[in-house]
Amino acid sequence: MAKLKIDFLTLFPNMLSGFLGESMLARAQEAGILELNVHDIRDWATSKHKNVDDRPFGGGPGMLMKPEPIFAAIEALQTPNCTRIYMCPDGEKLSPQIAAELSAKEHLIILSGHYEGIDQRVRDTIIDREISIGDYVLTNGTLPAAVLADATARYVKGVLGEENSLTFDSFNGNLLAFPQYTRPASFRGMDVPEVLMSGDHAKIEDWRRGKQVEKTKERRQDILNQKDKQ
Amino acid sequence: MAKLKIDFLTLFPNMLSGFLGESMLARAQEAGILELNVHDIRDWATSKHKNVDDRPFGGGPGMLMKPEPIFAAIEALQTPNCTRIYMCPDGEKLSPQIAAELSAKEHLIILSGHYEGIDQRVRDTIIDREISIGDYVLTNGTLPAAVLADATARYVKGVLGEENSLTFDSFNGNLLAFPQYTRPASFRGMDVPEVLMSGDHAKIEDWRRGKQVEKTKERRQDILNQKDKQ
Repeated sequence: MAKLKIDFLTLFPNMLSGFLGESMLARAQEAGILELNVHDIRDWATSKHKNVDDRPFGGGPGMLMKPEPIFAAIEALQTPNCTRIYMCPDGEKLSPQIAAELSAKEHLIILSGHYEGIDQRVRDTIIDREISIGDYVLTNGTLPAAVLADATARYVKGVLGEENSLTFDSFNGNLLAFPQYTRPASFRGMDVPEVLMSGDHAKIEDWRRGKQVEKTKERRQDILNQKDKQ
Repeated sequence: MAKLKIDFLTLFPNMLSGFLGESMLARAQEAGILELNVHDIRDWATSKHKNVDDRPFGGGPGMLMKPEPIFAAIEALQTPNCTRIYMCPDGEKLSPQIAAELSAKEHLIILSGHYEGIDQRVRDTIIDREISIGDYVLTNGTLPAAVLADATARYVKGVLGEENSLTFDSFNGNLLAFPQYTRPASFRGMDVPEVLMSGDHAKIEDWRRGKQVEKTKERRQDILNQKDKQ
């Protein structure tokens, strides 16, 4: 049995196909570590024309996703220990902590909205958690579902190869990453910093740490402020 | 000529295929509003084995993307007015403002990293802008490139149908969205709030505004604090 099963509920199943067929997640599926299933919400529509959307009560532009197909879909897929997630810009912000927490679950159902959103009764009763990937708006929630799955899967044991350690993450919640260089040592007159060629590990670590602090100060004073508060 | 041309540079071109073939972006491409091209960085690798990565100088786990193929790719694709973007967790945070700003450009090149990152000389010399979609880490930068393209494309005139207005966005930088309801008016004993059925537009607007403030206070005090500061 896979360590983590994720059911995606979307109106755009093909948007996820490329994502799921490539990269580390595809390998993890083949290895039986992950089980990823994409479902088309429209399959649970019961009306003659397979309608999944309707106009909002009280007026306003656009269409909303109707409650019935979503209730039916989630009820068909849910298991006793699953976490039912809705991707939306007003949810809690995705963080490495949330990703790590979700990676320890057995089963996630990730619902992606479309149009102007979904009927609030869905959110009030059969959603356990609402998550946002950032303060911006997308044409639909399917990319955010893929982002959440990718961020979460990284924490499932066996998904990342040994080569890609979690500890060296380019964003670890504390400091931004240091600059990295690879061969050639000289490229179009640009040389790799000498210290990195020195073989002096203590010196290299000092240099990297210094660069991390410098970049974080320059770009993300907010992270440092938060650290000071802790 | 399309209003906005986006060239994606990635090691996982198929990750983008589903995304580009579906949804509003596909329609905008067909309508000639957007031009979206996906390029495999490996096509610019010159070594016998088409290597695109190598070990970092100074030690550390993982592999870095080499400078030569990326320089060659960007130099082949760039135009005089293009903006060359690198997706990375230590870049500036994507916002509706950045998306709107980029939507006014003619040509974007979006470079997605993989492995532990890319050679710093790329970032120092042929990248105009580094953008992050949020404070979390993904297996590679291809999903973030899709997120950036989607957020940006929404602001290009003609991409969103009339039904999906920008002004009613669920996150507009000020307040979170109000709850929305659609038919049926009663579903499993859950009724749509009466005010929304009243036809009294002033009352409906009041109710919605109240719900927005309530939710924003509850979930995102940070947005309100920022507003107060302005």
